Amino acid sequence: MPDKELLRIPFPTVRRLPRYLQLLRELPGLEERHLSATWFAERLDLDPIQVRKDLACTGASGTPRKGFAADELCTAILEVLGWNNRYDAFLIGAGNLGSALLGYDGFREMGLNIVAAFDTNPQKTGTIIHGHKILPVSKLPDLAARLHIRLAVLTVDRASAQECFELAVDAGIRGIWNFAPVQLSVPAELRNEVVIQSENLAAGLALLSFRLQQTGPA
Amino acid sequence: MPDKELLRIPFPTVRRLPRYLQLLRELPGLEERHLSATWFAERLDLDPIQVRKDLACTGASGTPRKGFAADELCTAILEVLGWNNRYDAFLIGAGNLGSALLGYDGFREMGLNIVAAFDTNPQKTGTIIHGHKILPVSKLPDLAARLHIRLAVLTVDRASAQECFELAVDAGIRGIWNFAPVQLSVPAELRNEVVIQSENLAAGLALLSFRLQQTGPA
Repeated sequence: MPDKELLRIPFPTVRRLPRYLQLLRELPGLEERHLSATWFAERLDLDPIQVRKDLACTGASGTPRKGFAADELCTAILEVLGWNNRYDAFLIGAGNLGSALLGYDGFREMGLNIVAAFDTNPQKTGTIIHGHKILPVSKLPDLAARLHIRLAVLTVDRASAQECFELAVDAGIRGIWNFAPVQLSVPAELRNEVVIQSENLAAGLALLSFRLQQTGPA
Repeated sequence: MPDKELLRIPFPTVRRLPRYLQLLRELPGLEERHLSATWFAERLDLDPIQVRKDLACTGASGTPRKGFAADELCTAILEVLGWNNRYDAFLIGAGNLGSALLGYDGFREMGLNIVAAFDTNPQKTGTIIHGHKILPVSKLPDLAARLHIRLAVLTVDRASAQECFELAVDAGIRGIWNFAPVQLSVPAELRNEVVIQSENLAAGLALLSFRLQQTGPA
């Protein structure tokens, strides 16, 4: 399924796909159901036209008046996202947020499987957090090569972020899910190969508390 | 400082303010420093013109050729975000992600102080997680009123999200930092009063794995 056509899926559509997927996964008797764009739109508070476009992007074909076969759609979304094959990943940085994420079951549903966790702090390494023995980052390159790891969750502090990022990239890791509050700088020769997705919790909270001030006290 | 003028700060600017703040906080000798827009731009990989606009929005006044007084700028950003006063908040949902966030020190830097944590599951309530005794949600309304709580972090599962959201809003909570993968529906009469900021980890990972597939295998 992932052919040239799929490369042109708009990023906002990609970001919405997990929401369709989640509805599908919660549905009993998936094999026999057909679902319309309107069905999704109502449940997700989206425009039905947008939903139809989004679902068309996955390559799933709807039947007029019947809608999309639920099981086909589910498979199509998983393929687009690459979530049909579980992604083995490393977690780098077993501080507060990293430890938290190590215990977070939700990753599994997203196809993400943390196979090893690392830290730069010798006091952290050797400890067990949510069933993961924390390894020194010096072991990362060898293990990444042996396990063919392409994805890492980066939860180190600001000061170690760039260094750990470079270590990961040198070890062949090409996707970085960055939770460190820092702008990572990618070597020019790898700019087309390395993908960084940064999550910025402080930005979300900043916007929330700014807007909350505008509504005035209760 | 929060006057009418500040209400017009663009949301992308608000989202960037924590990054300036973080640089400022890491700086030794804040009182005596002046910093130019270029100084920030270089460190954050931003356009200096954008930085100048962002900082001007805070009401801090730069001096030509000297730049912004670091301590004034710090205070101005804190005031815009409402982070100069610590936000007392509730956390609702002590599952994996909720427990994780209860142990996350980073919130403190964002002015967020979780004063109580709740869960709907009787097997969770009474347990202690990262120093917080988990309370039944039935205690939320009374406690919210007594403590004048206006902000809640919502980390319940999809099935309980809308119900817990309504409970919080009925209890006078007006800002919801929503980590549940669900579109919360706000009662029409409260649409101008209730502010929701949703974080969607699945969307971020979807985009990362989609883009990573496009780069092809290493």
